Formats: sequence, C-alpha cells, structure tokens
Amino acid sequence: MEGRIHNFNAGPAALPLPVLEEIKEELLNFNGSGMSVLEVSHRSKWFDDVINEAVERTRRLMGLKDDFDVLFIQGGASLQFCMAPMNLAPDEKIVDYVNTGTWSTKAIKEARTQGKKVNVIASSEDKGFSYIPGKVQVDEDAAYVHFTSNNTIKGTQWTEFPDGMGVPLISDMSSDIMSRQIDVSPFGLIYAGAQKNIGPSGTAMVIIRKDMLDRVPDNLPTMLKYTTFAEKNSMANTPPCFTIYVINLVLKWLEESIGGLTNMGKINKEKAELLYGFIDGTDFYRGTAEKKSRSMMNVTFRLPDEELESRFVSEALKQGLGGLKGHRSVGGCRASIYNATGIDAVKDLVDFMSYFEKKEG
Amino acid sequence: MEGRIHNFNAGPAALPLPVLEEIKEELLNFNGSGMSVLEVSHRSKWFDDVINEAVERTRRLMGLKDDFDVLFIQGGASLQFCMAPMNLAPDEKIVDYVNTGTWSTKAIKEARTQGKKVNVIASSEDKGFSYIPGKVQVDEDAAYVHFTSNNTIKGTQWTEFPDGMGVPLISDMSSDIMSRQIDVSPFGLIYAGAQKNIGPSGTAMVIIRKDMLDRVPDNLPTMLKYTTFAEKNSMANTPPCFTIYVINLVLKWLEESIGGLTNMGKINKEKAELLYGFIDGTDFYRGTAEKKSRSMMNVTFRLPDEELESRFVSEALKQGLGGLKGHRSVGGCRASIYNATGIDAVKDLVDFMSYFEKKEG
Repeated sequence: MEGRIHNFNAGPAALPLPVLEEIKEELLNFNGSGMSVLEVSHRSKWFDDVINEAVERTRRLMGLKDDFDVLFIQGGASLQFCMAPMNLAPDEKIVDYVNTGTWSTKAIKEARTQGKKVNVIASSEDKGFSYIPGKVQVDEDAAYVHFTSNNTIKGTQWTEFPDGMGVPLISDMSSDIMSRQIDVSPFGLIYAGAQKNIGPSGTAMVIIRKDMLDRVPDNLPTMLKYTTFAEKNSMANTPPCFTIYVINLVLKWLEESIGGLTNMGKINKEKAELLYGFIDGTDFYRGTAEKKSRSMMNVTFRLPDEELESRFVSEALKQGLGGLKGHRSVGGCRASIYNATGIDAVKDLVDFMSYFEKKEG
Repeated sequence: MEGRIHNFNAGPAALPLPVLEEIKEELLNFNGSGMSVLEVSHRSKWFDDVINEAVERTRRLMGLKDDFDVLFIQGGASLQFCMAPMNLAPDEKIVDYVNTGTWSTKAIKEARTQGKKVNVIASSEDKGFSYIPGKVQVDEDAAYVHFTSNNTIKGTQWTEFPDGMGVPLISDMSSDIMSRQIDVSPFGLIYAGAQKNIGPSGTAMVIIRKDMLDRVPDNLPTMLKYTTFAEKNSMANTPPCFTIYVINLVLKWLEESIGGLTNMGKINKEKAELLYGFIDGTDFYRGTAEKKSRSMMNVTFRLPDEELESRFVSEALKQGLGGLKGHRSVGGCRASIYNATGIDAVKDLVDFMSYFEKKEG
C-alpha cells in the first residue's frame, strides 16, 4: 500500500495489512454494535465473542487440548518473569533456568528476587550468548525448567527444546510464539508478549497447563495469581480489549490466509534461508550467531565497521526498509522477520543489501 | 454519525467521535512513519512524541508541577490495589482506608493480603454504600489515606476530599479522573484505569508525587515498583503503545475542543443536573444514592419493578441508547455520563425516559 514501508522492527512489529484494513473498516461501528470496539463493554456479547474466538483460535492453531488454559495478562513478558516463580515454584523446591541472553538473565533475576533457589543449569554467556547450549541436564526434583525459546537481541533460537524428563518446561516465547508448529505437551507454562508475532503491545498471552494452577499460593495479590485469570476467562477486571481484538484478527489471518502454523513455519524457514543464504555468500555482511543456533525470527549481522552500519540503516529506511538497527545493547544490524513480514520484504532487503555492498564493499 | 448509538456504558465507555475519526484516518500510516501506530517501535521518535505529549498534556490539564510523575502501568486499577500498599506502606505503619463500596473493599482486601495494618477509618456500608461519609478523622501517623473518589457501581462521588492533615492522600479516580478540576496538592498518589474518562482499556494512569518514590522497597519485583516506571518514562519494558496513543488524542480533545478541566467540569455538572433534575421530578424513577453524595459520572436509578427495568434497558437500546443496565451486583439502571458522552445524549435519554414513563407509568 502506498506510503507504507517494509517493517523489520523487533517489536512492536509488522502486522498483516489485511488485519489493519479490517480494523480501520469497522473502527467506528463494531459488528453492528453502534460503538467502536474501543468503546464496547467487556461484559457485552460483542466482546465475549472476541475473547472466546481468540482463545479457540489459539487452541486450534497450537493444538492445545482441554488441559491448557489460554489467558491474557497485562504487563508483558516482564511481569511473567516474576509471576512464574511466584505462582509455580514452592519455596522448598529449586527452579532450573537456562541462560541464553538478556531476557533469560532478567527472568533469573526476578526468580531470585522472589527468594527462589535458582539453579542455572546451562548458559551461553561464555561466548557472548551467541549460541544455544547443547544437551541440558535438568534437576529431576526441580519445580520447573525455564528457557527463552528465541533470543531477540542476540538472534539465537532453540531448535530442539530441553528434555524436561517429566519436569514441566516453562518458556518465554515472546519472539517466536506461533511462528512454527511445536509440541506443547512437555510445557507447564508458555508466555509471550503479543507485540512480535501475534498482535500489538499491551498484553502477554499466557498458556498454562491446568494442573500447574494447583501450585498457586492462596496469599498472593489477586491480580498476580494465574487462578484469578483462569477462573474468569481473563476478565476478573477489565482486560485490554482492543489488544485482544487485534490478536484475534491476527490469529484469523494465521488460520484462514496462511493455513496454520505448519505453513507459517515453512514460510518463515524460507524467509530465513533466503536472508542467511545471502549473508553467508558475502564477506561484507557477517552473521553474529553460531550457524546451528540461528534464529528464524531475528537475523543479526554486522558490516565491516560501525560507520557503514549506521549508513546502511539510514539508507535502507530511505528505500522503505525500516527497523534494521540492532538492539542498543549490542549494536550492529538486525532484521526481524516475524510472521507478518512477508517474503517480498525479505527479497527487497536482500536486493538492497546486495546494492549496498556493491556500492560500499 | 450514522449507525452509532449514545453510549452510557460504565467502562469501557464512549470516546469522543473526533478521536475515533483521527485514529481511523491515520491507522495505516502514522505520522509519516510508513507504519501503523500499532506497528511502530516504542523506541522510535514517533512513539516518544506520543508518550511525552500524553504526559505533558496531563500536567497541563491537571496543573501538575515537577514534583509529580505521570506513569502508565498495565493491569488496571486492580493491580494498583496491591502496588500502592506494596510500594508506599512501610510495614510498621498503619494505612487508613475509607470504604465506600465494591472497589474500596477490594483495595482494602489487597492491602491486607500484603500484611499491612489497615485501619478502616470510615465506611458507608451501614446504608448499602449509598452515601459518602461526612467528616473523616485521619490517623496522623498513617502512611497514607486511601479513598475511591467516585463509586461507579453505587453512583456516589466525593465532593470535598478527606482532609489528610498532612498525611498523603491516595485515590482510585478510575471513574472521575479529569472530569473536573481538582487540587492535587494533598495527593501522594492518584491512579485510574483509563477506560472511563480518558481512553480505552489497557493501562492505568498513575500520578505519583516524587517524594513517595523514596518509600519503594528495593526487594520488590521489578515490574511492581513505581520507581521502575518513573526512571524510564514508563518504558522499562514495552508499554501498551496504542492505548497511550488514544489517551493522548483524548487529552488533546480535552484541551483543544473542551478547553480544559474547568470547562469539562461545568459541562459534566450540566449533564448531571439535567438527568437528576428529571429523575427528581417523577415518582416513576428513583435515584439510589443520597442526594448530597450523588455522582456526576454514574447516575444510578430504579424503576417501579425489575420487569420494567429490564424492558426499559432493552427498549432504550432499540432507540439508540446503550449500556443502561445497572451493575450485575446491584441491578437497576445506570447511565454513565463520562466526559465523552455529550449533553445531546443526556437530552435524548431524558426524552426517552419521559416517553417510557408516559407509556408504562
């Protein structure tokens, strides 16, 4: 659409254009209500339909049976860093964490702030978090094992998840939720800030196996208990209605236009292979993650020097390719190619990278 | 606008039509970014401008000097029920609460869950929360005094706030924030879910006097500390960008179209007087709150019997007057007449009430 750019931001990130068009179309009068979706009561049939659809679509897309609840909790993945240990780690038990970067490190810090016995069972800090640890040995009496499935900043991603040996897995999937089909059965909890693959910012999606709810201590603050959200379909208080509405539209797009997560995974693989393939074919661009740990969502790379990187980012934006600056903590460049960033965007990026190399290399 | 109704919902509630039209107009390309406001990074100049404007407009509208911070925190007022005591009540101090209904009761419960020494210094429970207590005696060594400025469910509102005698006031102003000009100087903390007077659901606005931040204990979870939000302009993690964007547009409307909170207060008074005046002139409708405690935001009333009430609500909706059902916990009828519900809507409501009485009375 005229005037719009290809959006490679790491989050908030691109949304499917048909979703944006549908929001625009019905913004003043939602579904015959005579009100904007921004104005309808969360206790109305209009919003009930929205949240129930979003939950059911999530179930269908991810293959979740009745033993999982799908919740929407405000505060982002960052609030989940404390809610997970607060709710799911009895004080006498240890909790296992794998450290693969900034977000894992923050999750570990919050578990420790809760006074939990944290055991960091594996870490890739020795090489600047440029890889995903190989075989991970889980403590068999741990309350859970926590890991970050995709590391947005360093551009690494788990291909094969840790073997919990029966200990429930907990994963922060903020930057790769619904980017591929996964087996959810070993998971006790999956959480994800919505603003990368499934919607705008303003809520985390929280998928919890129902037996985990038995662990929730009675004396927690009401709004920090998973049970509060599970018992009231995420509406113990007013939920972030518009964010959930947009998520539902994105999930509809995933089901009806993309054809589900297996297809989405294939498309994402194709996009990532195109971009990494180009990077590996030149000496001008250099990927920063170890090859076997590369993320299919966040492609991190460097140019020969920082001045070139800075120019690359600004010239790309002039060509309609936005959001290519690396995270401020690591520098360099990063192309986030989430679900809504299409193969056409990646092709245009590769063309520009090739042009820029010929000009500057 | 064709097809739209007058919206008397208690929250989420009506938004100004010009705000909705502006959102719609720029939904696919925000401010020349080439992206939707739903897609722009929170670390971009586009969003920086949005959040900074929202803060500055709040300062101007409410007359806040530099000794106050304006924060956006997800989780609604309900999360503030635990954050306020967690952050601002040292364990050895008592905290004073005034109980004027459902929301005050919940706030008290959460303070107790935190193990705080709660002193309920006044309550209107003896008469079903139908009034606001008169003179309130504050404990001079209390950490703070908490009250709910407007009671959405029972339709009562404080006209003159409690005298804290130097003890900081804390108020849940979810349902009357920015509905009138108030003197902020005795307040240590004001919080409000956005979804009634200032925007859609998805964030609380939190206004905190900076000296209160000295009380925040070090060992709290990062995302539950007011200091985390104060130090990073509410962007320690990804904020609810779209909600803040809409709030900024509503505040612009308050400043530029309404002319500020003194004017808004006059308009709200006029609306409330019209509706209460009509109710007081009939025996068919009966206000439920004591006259001197009546809310200018939520007008609660009964009809002669429940069958009539039910028919009143459904026939009104057919006439384009929506959201008139009372809260499910108390029954009856309620017309919420927040900032964005204009005098035209109230006039149409009074006309319908008059018609319905003639038909059924």
